[in-house]
This record gives sequence, C-alpha cells and structure tokens, in this order.
Amino acid sequence: MSSVAASTRPGGRSARVLNAIYTAVGELVGEGTERITFSLIAERAGVNPTTLYRRWDDVDALLEEVAVAALTREGDPIPDTGALETDLTEWALIITEDITRPHRTRYLRAMVAARDEIVSSCSVMERRREQAAEMVRRASGRGQEAPTVGQILDHIVAPLYHHVVFALPVDEDYARLLVRDVLLMVR
Amino acid sequence: MSSVAASTRPGGRSARVLNAIYTAVGELVGEGTERITFSLIAERAGVNPTTLYRRWDDVDALLEEVAVAALTREGDPIPDTGALETDLTEWALIITEDITRPHRTRYLRAMVAARDEIVSSCSVMERRREQAAEMVRRASGRGQEAPTVGQILDHIVAPLYHHVVFALPVDEDYARLLVRDVLLMVR
Repeated sequence: MSSVAASTRPGGRSARVLNAIYTAVGELVGEGTERITFSLIAERAGVNPTTLYRRWDDVDALLEEVAVAALTREGDPIPDTGALETDLTEWALIITEDITRPHRTRYLRAMVAARDEIVSSCSVMERRREQAAEMVRRASGRGQEAPTVGQILDHIVAPLYHHVVFALPVDEDYARLLVRDVLLMVR
Repeated sequence: MSSVAASTRPGGRSARVLNAIYTAVGELVGEGTERITFSLIAERAGVNPTTLYRRWDDVDALLEEVAVAALTREGDPIPDTGALETDLTEWALIITEDITRPHRTRYLRAMVAARDEIVSSCSVMERRREQAAEMVRRASGRGQEAPTVGQILDHIVAPLYHHVVFALPVDEDYARLLVRDVLLMVR
C-alpha cells in the first residue's frame, strides 16, 4: 500500500476522495478503457483534476498504485492445513482463482504497461513473499524440509503471473503441477 | 511469424511495404509512444492507412504480430556444449541478454498490453519450446536424465519473462539460479 493511501486511512474527506478515485480507476480499467487520463478519472470520480495532479506525478503512477492495492488485499488467509504440500496447493489455487478473474487480469496487464524503470520492490511479490515465508516457517516448525521462499516465488508465483499476463491458459491442474515441481527440488 | 509476413516473404512491393510498417512500429514502440494508432504508423511508414486497415483488424493485432516477429528470430543458435546443465545455462543467459534490452522489454510489455483473449499458442513460447526440446533430445541421446520441456519452460523461461515485464531485476546470477533449480527436479 502506498504512503498516500496509508496516510489517508483514518477516514474523513481525504479518504472519501481517495476511495472515489480508486473506484473510478477500477471502473475504467475494468471497462477496458484504452487511454485512461487524469481528466477521465477526475470526471468519473467527481473530483477536481487538480487533486490528481497534486498527488500523483502521472497517470501511470496512479494506475500502478491502484493495481497494487487491488491485488494485495490485507488479510488474505494463508492456508494452514498441517502439511506444506497441501498449504502450497491451496495457496496456488487461491492465487490462480484470484488473478484469472477478468478484472484482476486487466489490473495486472495495466500494471505491466505502467512499469518502466526496474522496481526495487514489487508490492504484489512482497505480499506473496510474506505469505510463502509464513508457510515455510510452519513447515520448519514441524521439522519438514521445504523449498526456499525464493524457489516458491520463482517456480509457483512467477509462472502463474507470467501465464496470466501473456494470456496463456492457467487452470487448477497447472497450479498443482507447479507445486509438485517445486517440491521435487527438496527431495 | 504470421501468415501475412510469410506470404510476402518472396519480396517485391508488398514485402517492402510490410518492412516499412514493421520498422515504423518498431520505432514507435522503441520511442515509448504511448498511443500507437494506424494513422501514426501509416505516416511514419509512408503508406496509406487503408493498407493497414485491410491487413489487420486493429492496431493491437499488428503490434502483437511485430512483437512476436521481433522476439522469435529464426536461426537463434541453440547451445550445444555436450552437457545439459551448460546448454541450459548458456541458453538462459542468451534469453536474459535478449529480453532485458530496453527495446525488447518494451516489445514484451506491448505484447502483454495487446493480449486480451486466452491465446491457444504463443509464438514466443512455442519457439522457446522447440529450443528446449532440442536440448532435451540431445541430453537423452547422451543417456542423461533431463527435466521435461514443460518444466524448462515453466521454471526457466516463465520466471525470466515474468521478471522482465514486471520490471523486477533480472541478471545472469538469477538465470543461473533458475537453471540450478530446474535441474534439482531430476536428481
């Protein structure tokens, strides 16, 4: 979550404005609008375009912020089934279901299109990293061997996101296959 | 390569026109033009916009065709070092060097942005699949155990492309790491 969003969390007018802006962006992206501008967003959100110019350097920065916020909901449950294989499988299925929804896929593509310079960290991947680390910690606590967090990100999360943004087929079987593959790395 | 490009390969006027169109698209994408239209391309290529409307349903279809052509050059050498590990490492380094060039990265992002419906096959991935299959065939010929072609695509190619389009850092060490990981699957 960006510092802008965080600083307005307590509520009040600025939170309502930000909410309206996020909703407007979500709608425009969801409708498949090709060329989203500050004016379009301001009109839809019922705010003054100046509000947007003051907060964000450009439209891409705003789009990316919304995409990140939409894709990394706090409080996603982390599967806790008692075994790493089933934890990872459930988790991979949750991610698959999430990112293959048409709206989510559009967000992800918008995020890719908005990226330019190498990012020092990607909020989506950081959230996935925390979730993976929690499952690995639990596995270690049970004395179970586990792949590294990096391996889980590179070999489960990355291929799922890759397939989704490139519009290659992704289904539950594919998610299960990736989990089986990553577990082969520790046997 | 698309059927349009293939059918004009023999040369002559249509090949020159197509070449001018491809070059114009490459320039516009390379310059980071945000909103590429048929008129822009036609102007830059010095052709009548009707030529574009007749050949392609929309700009996205043309952009994707150019991106695919640019990313899957025929005749890429497939490393043949006598051992699968070094073959895969050299290959992963070639891919890394290729897709991290700013122009290539822009092409890839343009391709992602142009994708909409699930594709039945992705020319970029199909080309990588053929290359991987060749290396696996050679390894089998030497009696060497190898990961499947699918594992090579999912765990070397997909993470590299994922990182590049999402603007996450990609370097030689990362490519080598992915190769080591995929080889752990067969031990």
